[in-house]
Amino acid sequence: MISSTSNPQIKNLIQLQAKPKERLEQNAFVAEGIKMFEEARDGGHLIKAYVTEELYEEKTGEDPDYFKGAACETVTEQVMKAASDTLAPQGVLAVVKRKGYNLSEIIKKQTVNLVLLEDLRDPGNLGTIVRTAEGAGVTGIILSQSSVDIYNPKVIRATMGAIYRMPFVYVKDFYGALEEIKAAGISVYAAHLKAAVEYDSLSYPEKSAVLIGNEAKGLSEEAAALSTCNIKIPMEGKVESLNAGIAAALIMYEIYRQKRR
Amino acid sequence: MISSTSNPQIKNLIQLQAKPKERLEQNAFVAEGIKMFEEARDGGHLIKAYVTEELYEEKTGEDPDYFKGAACETVTEQVMKAASDTLAPQGVLAVVKRKGYNLSEIIKKQTVNLVLLEDLRDPGNLGTIVRTAEGAGVTGIILSQSSVDIYNPKVIRATMGAIYRMPFVYVKDFYGALEEIKAAGISVYAAHLKAAVEYDSLSYPEKSAVLIGNEAKGLSEEAAALSTCNIKIPMEGKVESLNAGIAAALIMYEIYRQKRR
Repeated sequence: MISSTSNPQIKNLIQLQAKPKERLEQNAFVAEGIKMFEEARDGGHLIKAYVTEELYEEKTGEDPDYFKGAACETVTEQVMKAASDTLAPQGVLAVVKRKGYNLSEIIKKQTVNLVLLEDLRDPGNLGTIVRTAEGAGVTGIILSQSSVDIYNPKVIRATMGAIYRMPFVYVKDFYGALEEIKAAGISVYAAHLKAAVEYDSLSYPEKSAVLIGNEAKGLSEEAAALSTCNIKIPMEGKVESLNAGIAAALIMYEIYRQKRR
Repeated sequence: MISSTSNPQIKNLIQLQAKPKERLEQNAFVAEGIKMFEEARDGGHLIKAYVTEELYEEKTGEDPDYFKGAACETVTEQVMKAASDTLAPQGVLAVVKRKGYNLSEIIKKQTVNLVLLEDLRDPGNLGTIVRTAEGAGVTGIILSQSSVDIYNPKVIRATMGAIYRMPFVYVKDFYGALEEIKAAGISVYAAHLKAAVEYDSLSYPEKSAVLIGNEAKGLSEEAAALSTCNIKIPMEGKVESLNAGIAAALIMYEIYRQKRR
């Protein structure tokens, strides 16, 4: 059992959560909580799990094989508190292998329903978008390199497990990717506050992509110009814009609504 | 100019942000940022503003009357950092008068389009719901007493100003309020994971309310039973539920979409 926060493995857990560079170099990320652990274990993506003794006893009491085949180390409550990114740790931290996806793979499928994120910065927004995207039947997420790291612990948490299942790729040349996406026959619909077309007034084609811009600055002019169509979400009152995650959800679900008809 | 963080006014600012009880007793809350300050000033709700010297100079340089009629105190950068709830303070904290609304007032209007929140706990979710609600033309929000305080600084921030404009009320007897709402001819649609009816398959009447439950536990059985109709949001993949703010947004905007037709 690890009882010291200066244990090198615990230090590494903290680093993996704090630094995108560490996650990239180790090709790993940290997921917290029982469900996240179980999904990593069952999917064969688990590198190692760190579990409080209390949770270890509880789980092996219910099912002696619960941790079978999973590299696993017990830690004290105090070590878990130090290693966890949350105020109320759930008792298990899983170091998980990253997955690799590539753009051409994502855009060449039979069914294509994408979300494109230009410079999205808030971890909570990204996590919520990944979660909602899975619900709306989205087949992949393309992010500009400047967007928040999807393996940030706050993002992971907000995805509620969808991180394991949603294909995604960061692209260095976002505008180039937009061209490539359109060349693959996918229509790009960009959420834009000044657009003339309302998001629920048009029929979306079979292959479509929703483009969402930065939380503070909105979409770049270049990205808006490269899109097939700019769309707006109508608003009452004096509200100037909607939250980026909400805007993405409304458009994703409008497309999904039309697909279900 | 206030240059000490132990100044009683600064201590009070911090208390007002940290403690719901203080906010209630002083009938005030703290809003941060230029837009939030301006709206409080223009609406006559401002009690007092605390401004960094830098921002004070900048604003009075642009418009000598910028702070005219507003009780205002300058503070050092360091004091602002200590008093602000954010990592990157915007230079102004406004102490603002709370507004009073009551349930019967909210439900007896000609147009009624409500959001009902049972035990909603996450400040970001509540703030986003208030912001989206204004956009979707919602006329009021009813919250169970156990829900997060709407004057929590994180809620205020996420409302992006909608807090000043959206009528809301906390009710002690949430189930009693549901009965009262229905008795006023308002149909209650509860988001429920196990509902049979899809949220976009029905025609919403003129007077309707969307009911959203707790983030972790969902809606209580009592609230579900008291609703006119339980509705679900269809989901693909393995995602178990959507974020509460997203679910609220999708239903609010479906109702708004139908109203706009």
